[in-house]
Amino acid sequence: VQESGERGYIVPIGGAEEKLRDSEILGRFVRLCGRDRARIAVIPTASEERDTGSRYESLLEKLGARTVVSLPFDSRRDANDEESLDALQEVDGIFLAGGNQLRLSTTLGGTPVAKLMRKLNAAGVHVAGTSAGAAFLCEHMIAQGEEGPTPRPEMVTLSPGLGLTNRVIVDQHFRQRDRLGRLLAALAYNPFAIGIGLDEDTAAFIAPDNTLEVRGSGAITVVDPSEVEFSSMDSVRPGHPVSIIGVRLHVLVDAGVFDLESKRAAPARASSRR
Amino acid sequence: VQESGERGYIVPIGGAEEKLRDSEILGRFVRLCGRDRARIAVIPTASEERDTGSRYESLLEKLGARTVVSLPFDSRRDANDEESLDALQEVDGIFLAGGNQLRLSTTLGGTPVAKLMRKLNAAGVHVAGTSAGAAFLCEHMIAQGEEGPTPRPEMVTLSPGLGLTNRVIVDQHFRQRDRLGRLLAALAYNPFAIGIGLDEDTAAFIAPDNTLEVRGSGAITVVDPSEVEFSSMDSVRPGHPVSIIGVRLHVLVDAGVFDLESKRAAPARASSRR
Repeated sequence: VQESGERGYIVPIGGAEEKLRDSEILGRFVRLCGRDRARIAVIPTASEERDTGSRYESLLEKLGARTVVSLPFDSRRDANDEESLDALQEVDGIFLAGGNQLRLSTTLGGTPVAKLMRKLNAAGVHVAGTSAGAAFLCEHMIAQGEEGPTPRPEMVTLSPGLGLTNRVIVDQHFRQRDRLGRLLAALAYNPFAIGIGLDEDTAAFIAPDNTLEVRGSGAITVVDPSEVEFSSMDSVRPGHPVSIIGVRLHVLVDAGVFDLESKRAAPARASSRR
Repeated sequence: VQESGERGYIVPIGGAEEKLRDSEILGRFVRLCGRDRARIAVIPTASEERDTGSRYESLLEKLGARTVVSLPFDSRRDANDEESLDALQEVDGIFLAGGNQLRLSTTLGGTPVAKLMRKLNAAGVHVAGTSAGAAFLCEHMIAQGEEGPTPRPEMVTLSPGLGLTNRVIVDQHFRQRDRLGRLLAALAYNPFAIGIGLDEDTAAFIAPDNTLEVRGSGAITVVDPSEVEFSSMDSVRPGHPVSIIGVRLHVLVDAGVFDLESKRAAPARASSRR
């Protein structure tokens, strides 16, 4: 991560965004990338469906992007393909489709594509991902886990992700799949990252200055462990609940903001710029 | 991590280092920190034994350090203590004792102590850790796992660690506890970091230029996934073995080197500086 220059936005989306609410989230992403000048790459690697790339191509073009190209990285060999890497160099935004986040980490992890995506984001290219694509964006990725509100140690499996930021750990389909427990378990291992639980059709637009803004029809559950006084994860027995004391929790809806530096939440931006 | 200036050494040690071989590893750490000018802080947080801090104090002083102070961070409240933070500001080296790495991550993760250690290392302070202390040093920490040579998905539990580097994932007591399987499993999730399996009484001195040099009576098993062609972690069933194809493996002994940038291994440094 380079400190000079301005990083691009990082935009995790909770899944199921394109079918609902007139594509507010994807529309905002296209505008962010330059509206009718926007060149966007779609990476459908997480998906098992053959038409995922082409579906997002037409969707994003309909929303006004100038060019959208789907780069089907299906194997680690593909992730070394010069032509695809050249195409990726030319874009203003990258969109990672949903599916299985372990498809993304096992196929792209450590490859030239992953390195280039980190470099491009650091240089100003915006990177969005939905569902599995959202989970993969950060340094610490929830690979899999179980449902339920109470954390237990075996409830969550963490894996290295793409690594655009280590400030947050993202979980998606949050309300729909009852995932507070696994997000709390992830934070109980090491209470340093901020947990971001994304409902479906809901996105966190994380700006270069590390303020996060909510967009969409659902909510974002922000789980802030920075004042945690105690976690029993070092001594809990398998299958038993983990104790964690002092978590701060915010539920934010459309236009809500959270500052990842100061850890302050607000229902909307203070300025009238919105 | 700041790119300007020179980072301090990062020194993971495989455990059981002080009882054997005349403290070669700890002796080298003391010399690195400035020999008879060296001011070293010991952090015994991982340990459950009350005298761990004082034992390392006398050991490191006997090896020639000028001052050694043990900072007993026992709770997250302790990790905000101004006096201890001031003491930490003054040192040339930090030594993390062994025990349970989850004690370290749950007690120090996200606290001012963890932030300060990252800042100090980036500014040139050397940080060593043995056993659990070694596991905690990196961004991705093996929190727990099972023995055996063949990787299975549930064999390893990853957690965020202290975060001095994300280039390597460390495992310790490596030969003594048959841990190749769990290290391979960790890398199969996302083949981007280099796996470092440390035998007991063996250390990796990771220099600011990201070359790693082996010291001690055992070996370091370097597991390099940068040419991995395939990992089945995205589709493997629980309890079944994971397929991973194209791993490069080096076993290095005393004086052996591995360059984390070029991924080249050698039995000793090319120059005669040794």
